[in-house]
Amino acid sequence: MISSARAEIITIGDEILFGQIIDTNTQWIGTQLTDIGIRPVRKTSVGDNKQDILDAFAQASKRVDIVIVTGGLGPTRDDITKHTFCEYFGTELEINQEALALITEFFAKRGRAMTELNIQQAALPKNCTYIPNLWGTAPGMWFEKYNVIYVSMPGVPYEMKSLMEFEILPRLKSRFSTQIIQHKSIRTIGIGESFLAETISAWEDALPAHIKLAYLPHFGQVRLRLTGTGTDQALLEKQLNEQVGLVLPLIEEHVFGYDSDELETVIGELLVAQNATLGTAESCTGGYVANQITGIPGSSRYFQGSVVSYSNEVKMNVLGVSRDTLEAYGAVSEQTAREMAEGARKALNTTFAISTTGIAGPDGGTAEKPVGTVWIACATPDETFTQLLTLRNNRKINIELTSSYALNLLRKTILKTSMAVKG
Amino acid sequence: MISSARAEIITIGDEILFGQIIDTNTQWIGTQLTDIGIRPVRKTSVGDNKQDILDAFAQASKRVDIVIVTGGLGPTRDDITKHTFCEYFGTELEINQEALALITEFFAKRGRAMTELNIQQAALPKNCTYIPNLWGTAPGMWFEKYNVIYVSMPGVPYEMKSLMEFEILPRLKSRFSTQIIQHKSIRTIGIGESFLAETISAWEDALPAHIKLAYLPHFGQVRLRLTGTGTDQALLEKQLNEQVGLVLPLIEEHVFGYDSDELETVIGELLVAQNATLGTAESCTGGYVANQITGIPGSSRYFQGSVVSYSNEVKMNVLGVSRDTLEAYGAVSEQTAREMAEGARKALNTTFAISTTGIAGPDGGTAEKPVGTVWIACATPDETFTQLLTLRNNRKINIELTSSYALNLLRKTILKTSMAVKG
Repeated sequence: MISSARAEIITIGDEILFGQIIDTNTQWIGTQLTDIGIRPVRKTSVGDNKQDILDAFAQASKRVDIVIVTGGLGPTRDDITKHTFCEYFGTELEINQEALALITEFFAKRGRAMTELNIQQAALPKNCTYIPNLWGTAPGMWFEKYNVIYVSMPGVPYEMKSLMEFEILPRLKSRFSTQIIQHKSIRTIGIGESFLAETISAWEDALPAHIKLAYLPHFGQVRLRLTGTGTDQALLEKQLNEQVGLVLPLIEEHVFGYDSDELETVIGELLVAQNATLGTAESCTGGYVANQITGIPGSSRYFQGSVVSYSNEVKMNVLGVSRDTLEAYGAVSEQTAREMAEGARKALNTTFAISTTGIAGPDGGTAEKPVGTVWIACATPDETFTQLLTLRNNRKINIELTSSYALNLLRKTILKTSMAVKG
Repeated sequence: MISSARAEIITIGDEILFGQIIDTNTQWIGTQLTDIGIRPVRKTSVGDNKQDILDAFAQASKRVDIVIVTGGLGPTRDDITKHTFCEYFGTELEINQEALALITEFFAKRGRAMTELNIQQAALPKNCTYIPNLWGTAPGMWFEKYNVIYVSMPGVPYEMKSLMEFEILPRLKSRFSTQIIQHKSIRTIGIGESFLAETISAWEDALPAHIKLAYLPHFGQVRLRLTGTGTDQALLEKQLNEQVGLVLPLIEEHVFGYDSDELETVIGELLVAQNATLGTAESCTGGYVANQITGIPGSSRYFQGSVVSYSNEVKMNVLGVSRDTLEAYGAVSEQTAREMAEGARKALNTTFAISTTGIAGPDGGTAEKPVGTVWIACATPDETFTQLLTLRNNRKINIELTSSYALNLLRKTILKTSMAVKG
């Protein structure tokens, strides 16, 4: 196989090793590198420790062409990382005037006073290429040693992302005329990984050698990811689309989208196409469904709002669920879910409304309704659909799964409704 | 320094390198290991590639006592990982009858059919110690080679966590009588990292050598983490608490809690102590604040619900914001924020209510009210407090920052109110 450029991503910081923060930077960097045909082959995290950083650099230099480093910078921790760079690259620190001017401007613009620690952020290893950071105070740095490129950026996510997008990725792209890695994902919901695998095994076995398949399960969904490698982007795209066309008839009922499609973006498009509006009534999901929907820019075109009815009083007073229903069937029941969805349609004046009510856990379960018992409903102008979920013993997972299934019930309901109208 | 047991965490899977999933497993594993005095010194991610896995194992064996491996297992991808284990540990696969019985039971209980792929999950390297997985179908494995322990677990988070909690951590704890690493964190909000550093620099310089300090900034908050190393847990805790006592007077107004305290847990305790209730009215945060609050088990004791009023109609019809206010000042204004909070107190019948209204972005900004302009309010039985936020150009960050500041406004308001009552 012709090798494309290979990259290693190194993060520096005890807080990552000790688990005190979740590292989302390297995930994002991974997507950006693969998008321009650079293959991430390893990720390494080391602590704020000189020898560990030196070892990680030396080992990375033997396996990759590009080393992307984040973290270990910032006003209060610069010292160890920058001095370690100086040792590895055989140089020393000096104040970079361009960097100092930018940091001074950064504080002046915000009307904030500058401290000695901030001035020291402009001290950079002499032999690095200075990469201006317009979004924060820790500059980016670019080194080259024995044909390996090292890029260092602060670990603050939006600073790192801005530096990558505007400075680093364009430079890497122009430097490496790389082999192309192309992904195509099929997003499914409501079918287990092993059943999916059995259903499509003949197709999978017949895939050509340059196209690989991966199953990525996540909260009731499975993403089928095809990865093709080649040199002709148009041809590769065509081949991936052909494979999708072959497998689709086998699994169509479970497919809700492709690639970066999410249930909430797919639903947004369906609602806009129908000029329809949406509201939600949430009990056990506590605002999570609304938060998923409003995470999409432009969702205000169709999303009117939500009533998070955590207490029975709010279910009755704002959504109009009847006291009789709550007393006869309980808050976690098909009847309550139905009245919540229908009440939300009226209170929020929308075309569709979805509701959730259940026992998220860890407490609150009974023999009859154990933790994980959830009812969801979707109200339309004509009728209301309900569904019982039997989930797990974990609050966070139950909230996420309930949200996924409620959005999927809505998706299927919209499709059914629009077919009925067309039909 | 007496060396404590050192661990490396290895994740296997192309999807992590390519950034198609966010790895939260290693963060959690990091916290669990440090809690029992085992020091994570490195994290490594490799793809589904035999040579890369072998290299990672060989390198890890030179630096640590314990190698924790997750991922690379599951019905559709077992083969490469388990065969690689066989090569590294010099053995071959055979069906483990205990594992097969458990997998068979797993499917029988759930009334689901078992596939050939599932049967093959019971095939394990002959020389491993079988670790039963009661929560899924991929067994755990424990190997020892030249005084290094290797533990392999599936990557599905709740399976991995259950295996760690009930099987792996107890074994590691009994094996290693380790040196103790103790953390103590002070949680601050509303003060920048460099100002904080300047404020406490004299105290920081005087810290004893066995106590280290780190600054961990995150969405308007800075966590000050003290890490002490020693052999006497009680003494170490006492020393850390003494240091907290010394620094607290310098920064008290910015401190909202300690260690795993979050704004929403601190607020929950304050509300329970006062026998008070809470509701929210959210526009730009779209349910995120309610979702943060209801993420805490038991929040139903004080949280009544939320009205996510994305449209002006819902602001008027459900929250009772006046049309005149919306027309005169706009939806993003101090007046609207105030009426939303006061309306939510009435509609949801609560002691306190907080509201958010702003321009989260990326679109919707004007010269007068650019993206990032947000008003928040907190209504009490007696008066309503408001605050203007001037945030950034990133939707997700703006939603998270608004939520943090709104919860902090609530926290300060509750404290003020309770002091007024006591006074």
